[in-house]
Amino acid sequence: MPTMNRQITLAARPKGIPSSTDFRLVESELPDAKQGHLLIRTLFLSVDPYMRGRMRDQASYAAPVGLGDLMPGGAVGVVEQSRHPGFAAGDIVEGMFGWQAYMLSQGEGLRKVDPALAPVSTALGVLGMTGLTAYFGMLDIAKTEAGESVYISGAAGAVGSVAGQIGKILGCHVAGSAGSEEKVQLLKELGFDDAFNYKSEKDYAARIRSACPQGIDVYFDNVGGTMTDAVVPQMNLRGRIAVCGQISQYNLEQPETGPRWLFHTIVKRLRIEGFLVFDFAAEIPRALEQMAVWYREDRLRAEETITDGLENAPEAFIGMLQGNNIGKQLVRVSEL
Amino acid sequence: MPTMNRQITLAARPKGIPSSTDFRLVESELPDAKQGHLLIRTLFLSVDPYMRGRMRDQASYAAPVGLGDLMPGGAVGVVEQSRHPGFAAGDIVEGMFGWQAYMLSQGEGLRKVDPALAPVSTALGVLGMTGLTAYFGMLDIAKTEAGESVYISGAAGAVGSVAGQIGKILGCHVAGSAGSEEKVQLLKELGFDDAFNYKSEKDYAARIRSACPQGIDVYFDNVGGTMTDAVVPQMNLRGRIAVCGQISQYNLEQPETGPRWLFHTIVKRLRIEGFLVFDFAAEIPRALEQMAVWYREDRLRAEETITDGLENAPEAFIGMLQGNNIGKQLVRVSEL
Repeated sequence: MPTMNRQITLAARPKGIPSSTDFRLVESELPDAKQGHLLIRTLFLSVDPYMRGRMRDQASYAAPVGLGDLMPGGAVGVVEQSRHPGFAAGDIVEGMFGWQAYMLSQGEGLRKVDPALAPVSTALGVLGMTGLTAYFGMLDIAKTEAGESVYISGAAGAVGSVAGQIGKILGCHVAGSAGSEEKVQLLKELGFDDAFNYKSEKDYAARIRSACPQGIDVYFDNVGGTMTDAVVPQMNLRGRIAVCGQISQYNLEQPETGPRWLFHTIVKRLRIEGFLVFDFAAEIPRALEQMAVWYREDRLRAEETITDGLENAPEAFIGMLQGNNIGKQLVRVSEL
Repeated sequence: MPTMNRQITLAARPKGIPSSTDFRLVESELPDAKQGHLLIRTLFLSVDPYMRGRMRDQASYAAPVGLGDLMPGGAVGVVEQSRHPGFAAGDIVEGMFGWQAYMLSQGEGLRKVDPALAPVSTALGVLGMTGLTAYFGMLDIAKTEAGESVYISGAAGAVGSVAGQIGKILGCHVAGSAGSEEKVQLLKELGFDDAFNYKSEKDYAARIRSACPQGIDVYFDNVGGTMTDAVVPQMNLRGRIAVCGQISQYNLEQPETGPRWLFHTIVKRLRIEGFLVFDFAAEIPRALEQMAVWYREDRLRAEETITDGLENAPEAFIGMLQGNNIGKQLVRVSEL
């Protein structure tokens, strides 16, 4: 049994884009699992935009992470030692481990993952939190229907790439924006009807108009800012905006201003709704079942960017905030 | 029978706040009612913020008014002559007459008004379009429930003053902002728990916090702009924003910018929804029945500001856009 753990803690509150000095790698002793506990070895760690919010000294939907505290995050791991009746050594489990090599757990909040169903990393992506976020956003929030026109910002990210694929499964016209030619190429491979690189596009509004010539019924927003400003006037009557993320705003040192567009909600009778996947906890089993069917039928592809080594988690996280990832950004902490 | 009509037409497209030279009073011959037609004499004309949008050369939810065309608007009148089987001389009717002293009609879109129920002017206000707007906004859009905290911008206007009274009938904490001490006084008489004059208030956010110490579950927005910027961060979890109007924006020559606040919709899982009373056409009879009960029970007061004379309709309209009215702004065109 291992006797030492490695953890990444919050060393300083970032200003703007986090830097590696905002994190600290610490080693600590790892006790044996007591009665009722299990010891899990982390296989993959998920790094996600919401963590940027948790690094702020400001309450949001979750409490802020304290200085010196373990960085929070979802992970998938293998049970090394179990003194818990519900788990056996060798089980694959997913849960909020935080950024560490091992976790001692009493089993709460753990979900068993079937490694025969799909690679275990998908339990953090297409068949995990980000895939479910896309699912509930498209179906329960936006109530997307066949034949509608869907536009997705941040379309090559972990959530956006799944939202777009779900749009195609539903029979929609799907278009989106992403931050590189490589990402645009991926979106076309995933079946998007049109996609563009916003970094090389001066006139978002015109490009969106050509991507969605019938207007937009559903806008799945991961980005906010100037992209959203360009989308809102192109929403169709009774359009829905599912607000999933606002990544363009998370690293700003000074809040941005932008044009006021709320009157469009009256003219077009728009519904704008923000959501978190946690609100749909009771619906997760049903959703995962559907997503697994689509995955097995090859209608849903798992796009992943994998960085090796727990010590490189800060770099993977910082890169993800800057859009370096394609699909789900993961950190491989150990091999199965 | 009268032989001459008087009408107010759009003479020029306003820049910023309309001026009297943007309107023209014209006289025209008034033919007798032909078979199947009826002649209506206008009693009261309604002037409303939405008309500012119709004066723009830009499609919105309705086509723009052409230069030289009759100004559109709801009115209530008395049937002077009828050659239509559904109406008799003396009937009181409400409909989209436009800004004119008489209207020839084939009966479409007319609603008969019972003058025994309430003063006929209420058919344009509390028991008409603006009252119904408040009703559907509070109940069908915001889904306001007993015990919730409601905040209303433009609270002393035709819609806001009714929305607030409905909030009190539902058993809510109700607060709002308006543009004069006199209006604030009225709001308190109408039962608002708190109200303030935004024109003498430097720190909207602090004043709203003291008016709604439990936060805000329902924001009924008639105003937009800096008021809405101050309200959004104070919304409670699963709050709803019914977007009814954005009067602070209608007369701007240059569009405004403001802080971006869409991330609050994620953190608080807010729903923002724009609406128009016309979307609820099928529900109007049920809603009017309920509103009439509340009116007869003295739980709903009709607040009106009346300007005399069709020729003064432009002045009444311009004053209303600047907030000179309290409650519903009407123009008395003739006496019953």
